[in-house]
Amino acid sequence: MPGLTIGDTVPNLELDSTHGRIRIHDFVGDSYVILFSHPADFTPVCTTEMASMAQYAAEFEKRGVKLLGISCDDAASHKEWIKDIEAYKPGTKLTYPILADPDRDAIKQLNMVDPDEKDAEGVNLPSRTLHIVGPDKKVKLSFLYPACTGRNMDEVLRAVDSLLVAAKHKVATPANWKPGECVVISPGVSDEEAKKMFPQGFQTADLPSKKGYLRFTKV
Amino acid sequence: MPGLTIGDTVPNLELDSTHGRIRIHDFVGDSYVILFSHPADFTPVCTTEMASMAQYAAEFEKRGVKLLGISCDDAASHKEWIKDIEAYKPGTKLTYPILADPDRDAIKQLNMVDPDEKDAEGVNLPSRTLHIVGPDKKVKLSFLYPACTGRNMDEVLRAVDSLLVAAKHKVATPANWKPGECVVISPGVSDEEAKKMFPQGFQTADLPSKKGYLRFTKV
Repeated sequence: MPGLTIGDTVPNLELDSTHGRIRIHDFVGDSYVILFSHPADFTPVCTTEMASMAQYAAEFEKRGVKLLGISCDDAASHKEWIKDIEAYKPGTKLTYPILADPDRDAIKQLNMVDPDEKDAEGVNLPSRTLHIVGPDKKVKLSFLYPACTGRNMDEVLRAVDSLLVAAKHKVATPANWKPGECVVISPGVSDEEAKKMFPQGFQTADLPSKKGYLRFTKV
Repeated sequence: MPGLTIGDTVPNLELDSTHGRIRIHDFVGDSYVILFSHPADFTPVCTTEMASMAQYAAEFEKRGVKLLGISCDDAASHKEWIKDIEAYKPGTKLTYPILADPDRDAIKQLNMVDPDEKDAEGVNLPSRTLHIVGPDKKVKLSFLYPACTGRNMDEVLRAVDSLLVAAKHKVATPANWKPGECVVISPGVSDEEAKKMFPQGFQTADLPSKKGYLRFTKV
C-alpha cells in the first residue's frame, strides 16, 4: 500500500476538529507536531492512550511540541468521548485538538489505515500511527502500531528529545539513549572540527578496525 | 513514496548475508521476526544498536522471535564490522544474520530508505526501520527512525510482548503497558463471552458514557 513515510511532506489537509477547522500546515507552523491516530472513539486502548497523551501534554509543551489526534469519528463524538477520557484519569484535562475524518480520506493519505481493523460496516479503521512532523512539515519519525498494542508515551518523549538534541547540535543519540546521557558525534564531522564544536571534549572508542568513528560527548 | 506498511506481506527477497544466502519467507518460517535496517557499517549509532540487539537477543529468542538485520554494505564488510561491535560490548556475541543489499533494491521494497541520508556518492542510505513480521509473513508493527535517533530495544521487546499476548488471548494492551500489568478486553467480546473467556474476572471502568467498553483483566 502506498503511504506517507519519513522524509515526506505531510499533506496539507483541512479537517474538522474538536477545536474547529484545522489546516495541518497552519497548525504545524514553526513547531514540531505529534500527529497520531486512534482506531475509534469509545474503545478501550484508545481511551488509555488519549488519557496518557493528555498527562504527558505538559512535557511536550515544555519542548514546544504540539499534539494533534485524529480518527474517523466526527467532532461531536470526540467531544462526548473526552468526558470519558477525563473521568478515566481524574484531574486530567485533554486540551489538544482531535481531527475528524469521517470520509476516511485523510487516514489513507497519512498512512494511518489498519488493514486488519474494520468497523461494523466492514470499512477499515485507523491504526495507532504516530508521525513526528518537523517545522518543515516533513515526517521525521513514524511509529505504526496495530490496534492491539497501545503506544508508549515515554518512547515518544525520548524520540522527541533525541530529534531536538540532534537538530540543535551536530550529534546523534545511541541505542536506548536517555536525556542527559552521552551522545555520539556524526560521521561527517572530522576530529578537527569536533575539537572546535565540542570544547568539552569527546571520547573515541578503541575498536579493532581503528577507524575512530565512535565518538561520545556530552551536550 | 510508496512503501511497505502494516498489514502488507514482506516481499520474499533473497539476499546474501553474514550467514550465507537468505530467502526472507524461509527465514521467517513459523516465527515472528524483527527485520531491521541500519544506515551503514562502521558508523556510530549503528554500532551501539547492533551491540544492543545482540545483548537483547536472548530475550527475543526466549519468546521464539528471530532477528534479521540489513544494510547496503556487503557481507564481507558486515563480518569485519561485527569485530568492532563485539569489542564495543565485551562478552557480547552477535549471532543473528545481517543481510547485504549493495544494490539498494531491497531497502526500497522494505520501506527502509532515509531520504535525508546519503553516502559519499550521493546515494540514499537506509533509515533505522524496524518491522515486526508475523508467521503469516505480514508486517504487524513498524518503527521508522531517522539516522540521528538510535532505537530503544526495551520498546521493541515491550511491543513483541504485547503482540504475543494479544495473539494468544482476545485482549489488547493499554498505553504504556508492561508485561504483568492488566490488559483490556477487545470491544468485539460481549460481557457474556468475557465471563467465560476470563474466569478470573474483569473490571469495567465506570465512565460518563456508561458504554462499558473499558474492561481490564489479567492474563
